[in-house]
This record gives sequence, C-alpha cells and structure tokens, in this order.
Amino acid sequence: MRAEFRADLLEIGRLLVSMAEAVRTAMSQATDALLTADRSAAESVVARDDEIDNTYRLVEEKVYEVLARQAPVAGDLRMVVSALHIAGDMERMGDLADHVARTGLRRHPAPTVPQELVGVFRQMGNVADRLALELSQVLTAPDAGRAARLDHADDDMDALHRQLFAALLGPGWPHGVEPAVDAALLGRYYERYADHAVNAGRQIVYLITGEPVTPQ
Amino acid sequence: MRAEFRADLLEIGRLLVSMAEAVRTAMSQATDALLTADRSAAESVVARDDEIDNTYRLVEEKVYEVLARQAPVAGDLRMVVSALHIAGDMERMGDLADHVARTGLRRHPAPTVPQELVGVFRQMGNVADRLALELSQVLTAPDAGRAARLDHADDDMDALHRQLFAALLGPGWPHGVEPAVDAALLGRYYERYADHAVNAGRQIVYLITGEPVTPQ
Repeated sequence: MRAEFRADLLEIGRLLVSMAEAVRTAMSQATDALLTADRSAAESVVARDDEIDNTYRLVEEKVYEVLARQAPVAGDLRMVVSALHIAGDMERMGDLADHVARTGLRRHPAPTVPQELVGVFRQMGNVADRLALELSQVLTAPDAGRAARLDHADDDMDALHRQLFAALLGPGWPHGVEPAVDAALLGRYYERYADHAVNAGRQIVYLITGEPVTPQ
Repeated sequence: MRAEFRADLLEIGRLLVSMAEAVRTAMSQATDALLTADRSAAESVVARDDEIDNTYRLVEEKVYEVLARQAPVAGDLRMVVSALHIAGDMERMGDLADHVARTGLRRHPAPTVPQELVGVFRQMGNVADRLALELSQVLTAPDAGRAARLDHADDDMDALHRQLFAALLGPGWPHGVEPAVDAALLGRYYERYADHAVNAGRQIVYLITGEPVTPQ
C-alpha cells in the first residue's frame, strides 16, 4: 500500500472516530437535556449538529479525492466506499440526537417525559451511549466480535422500545395523548439511532469478513 | 467518454429508475392497504421489499465494479458515487412503505386510521406518489427545475404532517392513545419518505450544478 494512500485512510479513520465521539456526546447530552428539562444543554446539541454535518462533508470530500487520485481496487476500494456509508449513518445519528433535544425544547419548561418513563428513557440513553462507544472502538480497532456486541446492544434497545410501548398503550396510562405521542416519537429516535450504529458496525465487519450488509 | 463506461452508467441509471418505480408502487399500495385494511395488499408490500433491497445491492455491486474497472475522475466519479446515495435513499423509502404496510397489518382486521384521518393520509399518500414519480422522471431526464419541484412537494408533505398533529393533539380527538400513537408514527414514515425523495433529487441536482448536498 502506498504511503500516501495509507495516510489518506488514516485521515478518513480519524474523521470517522471524531464523528463517532461527536454523536455519542450529542445523544448523551440530548438525553440529559430531555430528562432534566435543561434548555441550554438542548440548544447546544442542536447547535453542534452542524459540526457533525461538516465532518460528514469532509469525509465525503476526502473519499472523492482518494478515489480520484489513488484509484483503489478490491479491498482498498471497499474500505474507502464503506467510509461513506459509515459517515452517512453517523450523520443521521447526529440528526436523531438533535430531534431528541428539540422534542425537549418544544415543551420547555414543562417536562416532556412523565416521571414513570424517566427510567426507560435513561436506559435507552445508556444503551445509545454504549452503542456509540462500541462504534468508536470498532473504528479504532476493527474486530468482528466487537461489532457483534453492537447487535446485542441493539437487542437491548428493542426490548426497551417494547417496554416503552407497553407503558404507553397499557390500561394504566394516565397522561393522555400528547405525552404518549411525544414518547412514541422519542422511542423511535432512540431505536433508529441504534439501527444506524449497528449498520455502521456491520459495514466495518464487511470490511473484515467480506459479508455484505443489508441496511436496517 | 468510453463506450463501456457509458454502458455502465446506463445500466446503473436503469437500476435506479426501476427502484424509483418500485418504491412508488410500494408506498401507493401500502397507503391503499392501510386505508382499506387490505391484508393481502399489505403483505405483498412487505414481501416485495426484499426485491428493492436486492436492487440496492445490484447498484452497489455495479458501482464497485465501475470504480475498480474504469477509475473515473471528476464529474464521472461524482456521478457514480451519487448513484450509491440515491439508491440508499430509495432503499430507505422502500423500508418506510414496508413500515406503513406493517402498521396496518398489526391492527388488522380493525382499521388503523380513524375515519376523520383517512383524508389526510390519502393526501400524504398522493404527495408521496408525486414525489416518487418526479424522482423517476428526474432520473430519466435530469433537470434542476424538476428537482426543485421535489422540494415543493416536500413542503406539501410537511403541511399535511402539521395538519395531522393538529388533529391528534387537538381538544376534539376522541380516539384515545393507541390510534394517536399509530397515526403519529405513520405521519413520521410519510414525512421521512418525502425527505429521502428530496435527498435523492438533490443528489441529482448536485450532479447537474455541482452544489453540495446536506442530507435532511
């Protein structure tokens, strides 16, 4: 592998890791902001989504540059194009953190999440955090076992999502329609965040094993 | 441009147009199935999503092959990589049609959508159909004006989405939590379908004008 190409891949890798860290911070702060009705934390998540979008564009530019200048083939080509997919998934994870933050802002200063759902959203936030952390680690040290752990965390997210809906749609729900609609959409944002983390992880497994990826 | 490369681009273009037609049919059938509680139509949408996923993989394989064999640069390179983004957006449009169909199946044989919301969902289905049609046309004959019409249709979808939420959250909503949660998630699926159509359209404008795209 030419030294220049290796340097390009390292730079793309660094950008991807910085995106993984940024989307991890974004969802963690968005969850805190949501559950504590912290307006300035929510606004900071919204403001910083532009930085994530900018990093996405840097990855895209770098990928175009590498394809044009180095004309990689086979595994090298796959690696470069996968970076685009991975960055695309993380760009979307940033958007979903932004949506969580904005949902909190819309009801501010009233709390968006009723007290009995704070626990399940806290857990969804924790699983999201674990997923983003695994993702930044699998980017740093690709490992099919670690990527499989992303799938397990995604199962945890799905279980929390079912638990959330059981609470919303159960006979004991006392809060009426609006908090239920907010909670259902919030649940969807966390679930999609997890799906994108898993997709990005699978792209990395694809690089290691050559097994193709079906997006979810 | 070499004849072989031109033939590759034509084949990619044909695959993209067939995806646009497939996701148009999928959402149109999913809307009908939802609003008429038609189980077999809904099941057919779900079953045919695999075909859309397969076409996505064909595009991806073809893109890898073209990048490796032809090593395109500049505008040619941009065109080939954009095909991946466009196919990715349409793969997701197929998933969202699948979600609409499954939402209907979950409540079958009971209707999922209360009578007073049938009109707004019918209109969302019509706007989705217009978007997918514009998309297949802009793929066949790229034109920045036509892509701008995608933005206008997306504005219509956003207005319908607001109208839907006003009905769900208004004082006169008599149906309780479960139909409201279903309707809110369905609204989100249509809105995202429109966003992906617009993203795909913008990728095509990017090919024409060189203006970069921020995903939405």
